[in-house]
Amino acid sequence: MAVQMPSEFGFSLKVPEGDDRKRHVCDDCGWIHYINPKIVVGAVCTWQQRFLLCRRAIEPRKGFWTIPAGYLEERESTEHGAMREAREEAGADIELDGLLGVYNIPRISQVQMIYRAKLRTPEIAAGIESLEVGLYDWTEIPWGELAFPTVKWSLDHYREVLGESVFSVRTNPPGEFGKL
Amino acid sequence: MAVQMPSEFGFSLKVPEGDDRKRHVCDDCGWIHYINPKIVVGAVCTWQQRFLLCRRAIEPRKGFWTIPAGYLEERESTEHGAMREAREEAGADIELDGLLGVYNIPRISQVQMIYRAKLRTPEIAAGIESLEVGLYDWTEIPWGELAFPTVKWSLDHYREVLGESVFSVRTNPPGEFGKL
Repeated sequence: MAVQMPSEFGFSLKVPEGDDRKRHVCDDCGWIHYINPKIVVGAVCTWQQRFLLCRRAIEPRKGFWTIPAGYLEERESTEHGAMREAREEAGADIELDGLLGVYNIPRISQVQMIYRAKLRTPEIAAGIESLEVGLYDWTEIPWGELAFPTVKWSLDHYREVLGESVFSVRTNPPGEFGKL
Repeated sequence: MAVQMPSEFGFSLKVPEGDDRKRHVCDDCGWIHYINPKIVVGAVCTWQQRFLLCRRAIEPRKGFWTIPAGYLEERESTEHGAMREAREEAGADIELDGLLGVYNIPRISQVQMIYRAKLRTPEIAAGIESLEVGLYDWTEIPWGELAFPTVKWSLDHYREVLGESVFSVRTNPPGEFGKL
């Protein structure tokens, strides 16, 4: 998704009639650009205790490692989105096995919904947003080169619920809001 | 949030450069209006086994009953949003007790995140979006006058996990996508 600054397109911050918050309003036609929180969907995917990781080919955090995850698209369920991202970024065919974490990054109005998943086959291939993809043992994970705090949280939480079929969905570690 | 039709503001559907989907693009300045799925946050709130319900003062489904819920705001966590909605719609001070359900309504690009919650006090009062609010025993719930399918799902799922401190987050009943 392209990054667009409303101020460069002739929007001004104003409180629309009947609203109680400032919004970006087009000076020309009055269109109101509501900024809604964005949903990121993804999954911690394993094949025989090895974790699927992708090295990012795009900014932000190009060259760093992530689990497959991305923006939920219009008219898509969160489950479908998580499976689509695994296919697009890692050529992976996955089966979901429960919602693992809901992480809030209010600073950037983002909610991440991360599933636990199993690869149906060990075949994987880097998509256009990945430089490389691989399956790593827990001890081989490049902990110092993870792209985002939520990647570490998801992996840690996966480990926490290992072997559990019923578990409470995990949230941000106390006091953490995803700052790099 | 006001309902705005992009077509009435001079937007046309086009695939932006580098994208693979049609988006609403302003004919005049090129601003791309991305339609992101929207997050609704809410809670099933109880006081001594009685359920907090609000009769809607606004469309859609004016006059019908709902749990307190509404759109997540910018730079707000899902937990904070659920508590805010209870305060705004029902004057209720609530304490969250786990994420109960994540419901997908892809037809309208909506993801609902409903918490389980307890009222800290039994004091409640209708906010401007509610005609009346009340605390109802399970058998008194106006089942035939609920505003949305997700209200029924949430109440049913609350009942399903009654007494459980650890439970898997609930999702749409099989084959249901929130059609009225």
